Amino acid sequence: MESNALHISVDCVIFGYDDDGLKVLLIDQQLPYDGSSADIQTQPQLPGDLILINEGLLQAAKRVLFELTQLNGIYLKQFHAFGDPSRVNDDKDLAWLQSLRTHPEQRVITVAYFGLVSLQDHTPKPASFAGSVNWVDLNDIPPLAFDHNEILSTGFDALREQLESHHISFELLPKKFTLSQLQALYELVLDKKFDKRNFRKNVKRMSHVIPLNEKQQGVMHKPAQLFSFNPNEISE
Amino acid sequence: MESNALHISVDCVIFGYDDDGLKVLLIDQQLPYDGSSADIQTQPQLPGDLILINEGLLQAAKRVLFELTQLNGIYLKQFHAFGDPSRVNDDKDLAWLQSLRTHPEQRVITVAYFGLVSLQDHTPKPASFAGSVNWVDLNDIPPLAFDHNEILSTGFDALREQLESHHISFELLPKKFTLSQLQALYELVLDKKFDKRNFRKNVKRMSHVIPLNEKQQGVMHKPAQLFSFNPNEISE
Repeated sequence: MESNALHISVDCVIFGYDDDGLKVLLIDQQLPYDGSSADIQTQPQLPGDLILINEGLLQAAKRVLFELTQLNGIYLKQFHAFGDPSRVNDDKDLAWLQSLRTHPEQRVITVAYFGLVSLQDHTPKPASFAGSVNWVDLNDIPPLAFDHNEILSTGFDALREQLESHHISFELLPKKFTLSQLQALYELVLDKKFDKRNFRKNVKRMSHVIPLNEKQQGVMHKPAQLFSFNPNEISE
Repeated sequence: MESNALHISVDCVIFGYDDDGLKVLLIDQQLPYDGSSADIQTQPQLPGDLILINEGLLQAAKRVLFELTQLNGIYLKQFHAFGDPSRVNDDKDLAWLQSLRTHPEQRVITVAYFGLVSLQDHTPKPASFAGSVNWVDLNDIPPLAFDHNEILSTGFDALREQLESHHISFELLPKKFTLSQLQALYELVLDKKFDKRNFRKNVKRMSHVIPLNEKQQGVMHKPAQLFSFNPNEISE
């Protein structure tokens, strides 16, 4: 009953948010350095790689994300394991996989994490040695390698589900934010409109959202009050 | 960067519910049939086993559950992958694992599913050839093999989180149930008391709970109205 050669990878769906909307971090597949496979068509994919034999899953996700994008210290949460026996055997993925692995036909099960970054406070600079790394608007996601479109969409479902129940929206917003920014984020992720007055009434009841004695600066319109999240009220 | 020998298993946390409370299905570890290891101390564990090389994860969970307990056709949902590099290397687990596997030290990553069964309509009869199989009250769970206590408690967290948002309570109740039964289930899983009148008011607003033109039968007290769930209103 022991199973044959199996590999485990981690893949990361990193959502970045600013006033322009919700973006996802995609990388271009790399080819071997020797140039032997320069004619192989690469595809955009989520940052991911095989785990090391002595590495925990979250630890692997952090390492792989850092190696491929230089992103560090961001919120990562496991949301699903993808194990379709043929998930890396599609024709579109074969050539690239052959250029990289000795047994491209072997099964890979991947454990997927989503991560959240505010692009307002600082836009993370992905490492250039990993090839091209891009923040792509969620509405403009191209066809991705393997089953990564499915992984991305399942990751977005997980974000949507947990946005309210887990108070994770603060990971996507700047440290100080306006209620308009909070409402815009909720409307984008949950794909519905909220009445401004009701939304504000509800926020006032949330003990984890704290009004600051501070207003926006450097804006053309009437500066709005700033708020922040109370980390003590935020549970995993 | 390719990883060494890794194995993937599935483990199932099966919750069963009736008016006596919430139970979990545990099996006793089996020893080789030849009797060579009869002196090895076995421990209770969750139903689980290695996946087959051509098998999807959910498919493996269904097969393993059926092989070990004869349970079939029940709601199963993946909730977490457990990948601590030393999760099967504890001293307490070594002897049993050695009796069964050629490389007991090799790493096993497990993908865990929770399942839900109503014990009211029919108490599933677990298969006897799998050794002892028992429904154990959630409050009386003994120390389990490997990291199965942690898997169970993470599975219960997942059930608690999804009870309301995913309308899965109907999987734990008989087809026709009273509002007292529904309230008792919510109170048990969410570990809080609800005011009876408010609870009923809230239920009336739930489009997936339908009042039936039927009352309880064969009860000593005043028979209560029966309800059922509208499957069209229930989404995954």
